[in-house]
This record gives sequence, C-alpha cells and structure tokens, in this order.
Amino acid sequence: MSDSLDQLNARLLQFAHERDWEQFHTPKNLVMALAGETGELLEHFQWLTAAQSATLSDEKKQQVAHEMADILLYLIRLSERLDIDLIAAANEKIAINAVRYPAEKVRGDARRAGEYDD
Amino acid sequence: MSDSLDQLNARLLQFAHERDWEQFHTPKNLVMALAGETGELLEHFQWLTAAQSATLSDEKKQQVAHEMADILLYLIRLSERLDIDLIAAANEKIAINAVRYPAEKVRGDARRAGEYDD
Amino acid sequence: MSDSLDQLNARLLQFAHERDWEQFHTPKNLVMALAGETGELLEHFQWLTAAQSATLSDEKKQQVAHEMADILLYLIRLSERLDIDLIAAANEKIAINAVRYPAEKVRGDARRAGEYDD
Amino acid sequence: MSDSLDQLNARLLQFAHERDWEQFHTPKNLVMALAGETGELLEHFQWLTAAQSATLSDEKKQQVAHEMADILLYLIRLSERLDIDLIAAANEKIAINAVRYPAEKVRGDARRAGEYDD
Repeated sequence: MSDSLDQLNARLLQFAHERDWEQFHTPKNLVMALAGETGELLEHFQWLTAAQSATLSDEKKQQVAHEMADILLYLIRLSERLDIDLIAAANEKIAINAVRYPAEKVRGDARRAGEYDD
Repeated sequence: MSDSLDQLNARLLQFAHERDWEQFHTPKNLVMALAGETGELLEHFQWLTAAQSATLSDEKKQQVAHEMADILLYLIRLSERLDIDLIAAANEKIAINAVRYPAEKVRGDARRAGEYDD
Repeated sequence: MSDSLDQLNARLLQFAHERDWEQFHTPKNLVMALAGETGELLEHFQWLTAAQSATLSDEKKQQVAHEMADILLYLIRLSERLDIDLIAAANEKIAINAVRYPAEKVRGDARRAGEYDD
Repeated sequence: MSDSLDQLNARLLQFAHERDWEQFHTPKNLVMALAGETGELLEHFQWLTAAQSATLSDEKKQQVAHEMADILLYLIRLSERLDIDLIAAANEKIAINAVRYPAEKVRGDARRAGEYDD
C-alpha cells in the first residue's frame, strides 16, 4: 500500500482496538457498513441534475467529502481484515479494463461491459 | 493525496480521455457507478456466515479484491471531478469520529452513532 | 398484505423450502441480498441521462423489470422473516411523510428532509 | 398490480403532484433514491449477528418496517414511471429462478447463480 493508506490503516486499527470494536469488524459486517455509507453518498446526489452534481456548494462538498472518506475508511479496514493490497488490486483492475474496453472499440460509448460481447 | 492514489488518478484520467468517457463521468453518474460496484461486493458476502467471510478461498479473495478495486477507482475518479482530497478528508473523519465515539463511552458497543445521544 | 403480495410470499416460502434455503434467509442476509439487487438496478441507469432513463428500449425495460422484481421478492421475503406488514408500513410512511413535508412548504423543492429543519 | 399496490401508487402520484415533485422523479433519480433507502436499511443490520437480526426489539422493528416501506414506495413510484407491472414481473422472475435453480441441484447450497455454471 501507499504511505498514506498505510497511515490511515494504522490509525483505524488503533481506533478499533481502543474501542474493542474488532469483534464487530468481520468482513461481512464491514462490507455492509461500506454499502451503508454508499447509500448516504447517493442521498446527496439523488435529486441533483448532472450539472448541479458538478457544482456543489462548499457546505455540501464538505459533507460529500466526509461520506467519501467513510467509504475509503471501510475499504481500508476491509482490506486489512482480508489481507488485500488495495493499490495493487486497483492497478490490476485498470490493466484488466484496458483489455476489456479497447479504446478504439468503445470510444464515446458507455454501455455496460457485458453488452459489448454481442 | 498520496503518491499511490495520485498515480491511480493519473491512469484513470488517461483511461477516460482515450475512450472519450469524460462526458459520462459526471459526479452523479460516478456515484451511481460506485454504488453499483458496492452491490457486486455485497453479493460475494450475502450468504456467508461471519466466519466464512473471514476465510475466503484464494479465487474468491481475488474476485473480492477486484470489486474493492472498482470501488476505490470510482472513489478516486469522483474525488478528481469534485476536487476533493480523499486522504485529507479521511484523516478529518477519523478525528471527528474520535470525538463522536469516545473510547470510554462506546467500548465493546457498536450501536449506531445517533443512538448514543439517548 | 394484499392478495398479490400474499401469493408471492407463499410462492417464495415454498421455493425456499424446496431448496432448503431457509437456513440462509436470516434477515441480515436478506438485507444484503436486497441491496445487491439494488446495485444491479443502479448499473442499468448509471450512464444514462435523465431523459434516456425515461425512454428505455423494450429489452432494457424487461431487464429492469426483473431487477425490480428481485428487489420486491427480497422485500417480501424479509417482511415474512420479520413479521412485518409491508402494505401497512407503506401507508404509515406516506402519512408520516405528509406531515414531514407539508405541500405548501416544499412545493417544487426536493432538498433532503433534514435540510428543511434549518 | 394488486389492489393494495394500486392504492399506494395512487397515493404516491397525488403526493408528488401536490408538491410539484414529478419533475424530480425521473427513473434515474428514483433508482438512486431507492438505493439510498436500501443503504439506510443496511445500517440497521450491519453490526448485528444473524441471530440478533432475527430478534429485533419492537422499536427497531418499527424503524426497519419504515425503511422497507420507503423501498417499496420508490419501487412502486419507479414502476409507474416506467410502466412496469411489478407483480407480473415478480411472478415471471420466480418462474425464471425455478428453472435456473432446480431444487434437486441446489438443495442446501446458496452459492451465486453464475457459480453453478461450472
């Protein structure tokens, strides 16, 4: 992992330990918590137009930043529990996507992956 | 941001540009895509017991790593679109949570934040 | 419940029983499964404009109908496990919302509930 | 649709009309709102064991019932916008699942659908 994610991981480990919360942090529970935070992020955007979603007020942007932070924190916590290297996985996934979506084939087209198989 | 997230961000920007996909990457759409990936992560864990969720097979772990990678990648993409510093927001959120959940008050107790107000 | 939901509930109970799947249908697991299906629904809409989302092709509409069906089925299954009357709860919620969002106060305004407190 | 869902649909149409909220109720937005409510449902269950999730307190059960109601209401609202018959789609989906998961093949086994293809 990167230094920054490593530092966040260490802070989260200590945070959970001090509160005796490791017992709740099963991967299954952490996945649910991550998804719950994603729901909160959605709620900030659900009634906005695409244009409005790109021009948030400072107050709203701050709230959105904290929801995104919650997602990242659960992602880091989950990667620690499962012994997964997030950064390595992300680089792998970009490489996979580069093969799956060749630029010349999908330019300007955002259909779902499976739909290109036709 | 950290060096690793910066590098992923740069790769994602190039990826989107080569495919003329910036037009689809409104914050609203990226939030939906992030939530869609979270759904895929949930599906891997929905029928597992807590214990099973902590002892994934290598094959399953690889799949889970890639779903987590998708979430991270959309999180990075969204933070770029909204000009949000993910790492700074994550550190802020940990500081907020430390005040919100004092260790001596919540030890061993995982009720929801609001429920501590009682 | 309504007759139609009652009938679906009976079909689902039999379906689970014939497959010895009751053991997996804890409320926690069913909530995850419901959320996983919601993720699939999101994926159909994530790159569409608002206008495109209102004019789906017949094929896409069929797929969307089946994702919505999956959500309804898990909702029914969950209500059976928790002994909750979905229709009664829905009517209650509409009554609550009518008080929470007085027409004259929120007309043409879709900000989040909490934001009206200011 | 069933009478009960029809009645809820009529109440929701009137509710939206009185508040001039039809403008926000694009299928895309409704899907996001539905997913946001699913996130709230998840949050009620994320730290519970499977056993705890089956023995909710009356207060918690009431809260869960209202989150489930929100999901049902957005599902009905979305089906109206897209002209989809939810009950018919649900019956179709059960029939599809009966073929996809033959009882004798999947008894006591809850792996994901795709995994049975192997």
